[in-house]
Amino acid sequence: MKKQEKTAITPTRVEDYPEWYQQVIKASDLAERSPVRGCMVIKPWGYALWENIMKILNDLFKATGVKNAYFPLFIPLSFLEKEAEHVEGFAKECAVVTHHRLEQVAGKKGLVPAGRLNEPLIVRPTSETIIGDSFSKWVDSYRDLPILINQWANVVRWEMRPRIFLRTSEFLWQEGHTAHATKAEAIERTNMMLDIYKTLSEEYLAIPVITGRKSPSERFPGAVDTLCIEAMMQDRKALQCGTSHFLGQNFAKASNILFQTAQETEAYAWTTSWGVSTRLIGGLIMTHGDDDGIILPPKISSAHVVLLPIIRNPDDKHSVMEYVKSLERELKEHSYGNRRIEVEVDTRDIGGARNWEWIKKGIPLRVEIGPKDIAQNAVYVGRRDKRPNEKISMKRNQLVSEIQDLLDQIQSNLFGRAMSFRKEHTVNIDDQKTFYDFFTPNSIEKPEIHGGFTQSHWCGSEKCESKIKEDLSVTIRCLPFMAEPEAGRCICCGEPSQRKVIFAKAY
Amino acid sequence: MKKQEKTAITPTRVEDYPEWYQQVIKASDLAERSPVRGCMVIKPWGYALWENIMKILNDLFKATGVKNAYFPLFIPLSFLEKEAEHVEGFAKECAVVTHHRLEQVAGKKGLVPAGRLNEPLIVRPTSETIIGDSFSKWVDSYRDLPILINQWANVVRWEMRPRIFLRTSEFLWQEGHTAHATKAEAIERTNMMLDIYKTLSEEYLAIPVITGRKSPSERFPGAVDTLCIEAMMQDRKALQCGTSHFLGQNFAKASNILFQTAQETEAYAWTTSWGVSTRLIGGLIMTHGDDDGIILPPKISSAHVVLLPIIRNPDDKHSVMEYVKSLERELKEHSYGNRRIEVEVDTRDIGGARNWEWIKKGIPLRVEIGPKDIAQNAVYVGRRDKRPNEKISMKRNQLVSEIQDLLDQIQSNLFGRAMSFRKEHTVNIDDQKTFYDFFTPNSIEKPEIHGGFTQSHWCGSEKCESKIKEDLSVTIRCLPFMAEPEAGRCICCGEPSQRKVIFAKAY
Repeated sequence: MKKQEKTAITPTRVEDYPEWYQQVIKASDLAERSPVRGCMVIKPWGYALWENIMKILNDLFKATGVKNAYFPLFIPLSFLEKEAEHVEGFAKECAVVTHHRLEQVAGKKGLVPAGRLNEPLIVRPTSETIIGDSFSKWVDSYRDLPILINQWANVVRWEMRPRIFLRTSEFLWQEGHTAHATKAEAIERTNMMLDIYKTLSEEYLAIPVITGRKSPSERFPGAVDTLCIEAMMQDRKALQCGTSHFLGQNFAKASNILFQTAQETEAYAWTTSWGVSTRLIGGLIMTHGDDDGIILPPKISSAHVVLLPIIRNPDDKHSVMEYVKSLERELKEHSYGNRRIEVEVDTRDIGGARNWEWIKKGIPLRVEIGPKDIAQNAVYVGRRDKRPNEKISMKRNQLVSEIQDLLDQIQSNLFGRAMSFRKEHTVNIDDQKTFYDFFTPNSIEKPEIHGGFTQSHWCGSEKCESKIKEDLSVTIRCLPFMAEPEAGRCICCGEPSQRKVIFAKAY
Repeated sequence: MKKQEKTAITPTRVEDYPEWYQQVIKASDLAERSPVRGCMVIKPWGYALWENIMKILNDLFKATGVKNAYFPLFIPLSFLEKEAEHVEGFAKECAVVTHHRLEQVAGKKGLVPAGRLNEPLIVRPTSETIIGDSFSKWVDSYRDLPILINQWANVVRWEMRPRIFLRTSEFLWQEGHTAHATKAEAIERTNMMLDIYKTLSEEYLAIPVITGRKSPSERFPGAVDTLCIEAMMQDRKALQCGTSHFLGQNFAKASNILFQTAQETEAYAWTTSWGVSTRLIGGLIMTHGDDDGIILPPKISSAHVVLLPIIRNPDDKHSVMEYVKSLERELKEHSYGNRRIEVEVDTRDIGGARNWEWIKKGIPLRVEIGPKDIAQNAVYVGRRDKRPNEKISMKRNQLVSEIQDLLDQIQSNLFGRAMSFRKEHTVNIDDQKTFYDFFTPNSIEKPEIHGGFTQSHWCGSEKCESKIKEDLSVTIRCLPFMAEPEAGRCICCGEPSQRKVIFAKAY
């Protein structure tokens, strides 16, 4: 066996964060690049994370009356054009279907596109316009409202510089779409869904998030208001983890979602849309990963525990495996969070590489079981949130009875760490020089490292926003809900400002 | 309220089967056409059926070691061309992406496709070639085999004559793909997955199926052997409900899935693929539906029971609703099949239309609850597999304690009916004249009605197969596994034949 390096991942986070990210994904077996530009292959260990996210959100959505449905992959170009800001927002990144068959052409090798469509079809980048068309048929009267729909789907937004999970041309997501009789109800729904995203992020993914509202220039194309959750990654950059949009009557007008009110007048519905995507898996990696690979929070992990039988003498095989199997059965009888405890058993005879593989895959608990442990009715337990060689001996019964506690400790430890990290790297800055220094890398060796998040005053002008973006590649992540109104002066122009906003570099 | 017709669906099955099918879908709120040619909108009541199918299959797949993953939506044209028969099979029905953005052109209204791709991308009609590419990277040695992967995805096969659920340009499906070190193991897997499809169809969907093998001309493009399950619809036509393909080494050669054997030689893997789609929902409708709408088998139904409070006097409202809510809670504590009992409560004040809506939606049990029933601690129960007005009074406790029994009775009644129907319309035919008469509509008024399935001898020649197809639009559905070898003479040419096959008209 090759001697294990000090860390399992090369380079480390400090050495080269972007490259560390790529290497962690490779080492964890979560996903890989595909031969199709910008598209990824999500491997079983990564897809299980997405399945768990689906399960959690389905339960949370359902409790608020949302039902799942499915709408077409293709959107006629004329539909996309119905909302002017919307089509402008997506025109630069559309996959366009123009033909519906392939044929042989004389003198040419291979097949060429044939059967040109009268109207090009766009592979959905998002589905407001096609779902709006259905809503317009489903609504006659106020009695038909609200309509509360969610769809699990793939969407395509052409990416020139793709990055697995964070920015891919095709990604998986859920998109919720609702229509309401009143503005107040639609706004309430927009907030409600943001709260669900916060719950998903903090309670399941152990990613602390700041909730807030986007500045006008960062809104979803066509929205009246975009709410978001923003998290800090370990390179101190922000990752937008989910958005919830209040669309006003813009899309209702574009799609003609008209209804008869209780007063027998006609009115346009008020709509919302909201989504999270496989990008969240990128967020998981960058929030919790260390220099040995990913660390999966137990509530979302593909499996909770791996049993690693240690059989040096073939004579021990039978008794060790019997012990392992009965332990597996017992552990599987317990639940954690919203599902049964998932146990992997790895019997491969590949030496220490086996242990390191599970570390790199981020499984919360590794349990080694050899003849000596069995003799004492004990097992040897490694927690992924501790150092790789920091393992403790536990009585078998103790492991079984305390497994939920152990997993809870890991879950809250991960959340606590991430919260401390964010607090440590979030500062109030009130003068321009400090602000510019904060976002300027402080050494040539570590060009990616900068200060983190600032809470600074902003006058509200797009001019200041774009100057900061141009000078520093720093954007307003959100106008945070937690911030109290407070008089001050804009960090850029010095004009009066009523509140602080969050500035950061972002993915 | 409009007086209810004798049947809720017009036309009836006998009057016009294809139109009955469209009307049943409309009345049941399962799905609707979309403005995108050939694509459907699957509404919540229909999508829940698909979610239940996903849940059932995920459990069955997982028990055999299959894991879920996700692969790109797009397939480069050159990949599709790697297997000659394969590309030929799909070339006529491909959605082709040729551009990656939209732009304004001087003098033209609206946007036009721009950013032409160097190589066209095909929206996946199936994923053998793109998944094969991943497999080729995942396999080095025989120790890496088998690979057992499934993906839940949307696929596109351009349809000129679309029909909701049965033939749509976009549909949802699962596609399993496996790679093995030996031919025998791949064949075993092909059979194993067909068995799972039979279990899904018969035990959950209550659709009896014939298992068998396709004739060479009906094989999946590129397959060595295609196994299938075939069901009889109520117009006596066949519906292919699922297929499992043994691909030999064809796709392994095309995708270069090479591995080192235990003997240290190099060999191509043996692969399989297998799938079922939203077409199954069309099968459900056509197997069980009657002239009042669909009938959902309890094991797959979106919900099991609807509670219909009857409140003629507003003073009764509080007590009736209390009673209904407590009954709802009690019922939900029970499970049926692999999930909790799902209860709908419909409090709308729309008269008899409410009852008929649930009949048309096919919910297994309707429970009416009024003050008089409550006084006797009783409820009034209608089973969807009985006549609409054949309702019985039951004690409330009896309903709660016997709900699983009731659902089981409905489930097996539906299966039994469908099995009887198939048996009734499946005959052995040994002479050509009887065969031709059997498939010729017997009256001008009912041009769709013909005999059903025949078990007849076939010599094995493609010539006879295509003559019958041309003359009668009848195809060989399968060479059934249940048929014993038996000497006879081909129904078409009279030459010797070793076995009977199933002939039928088909969807």
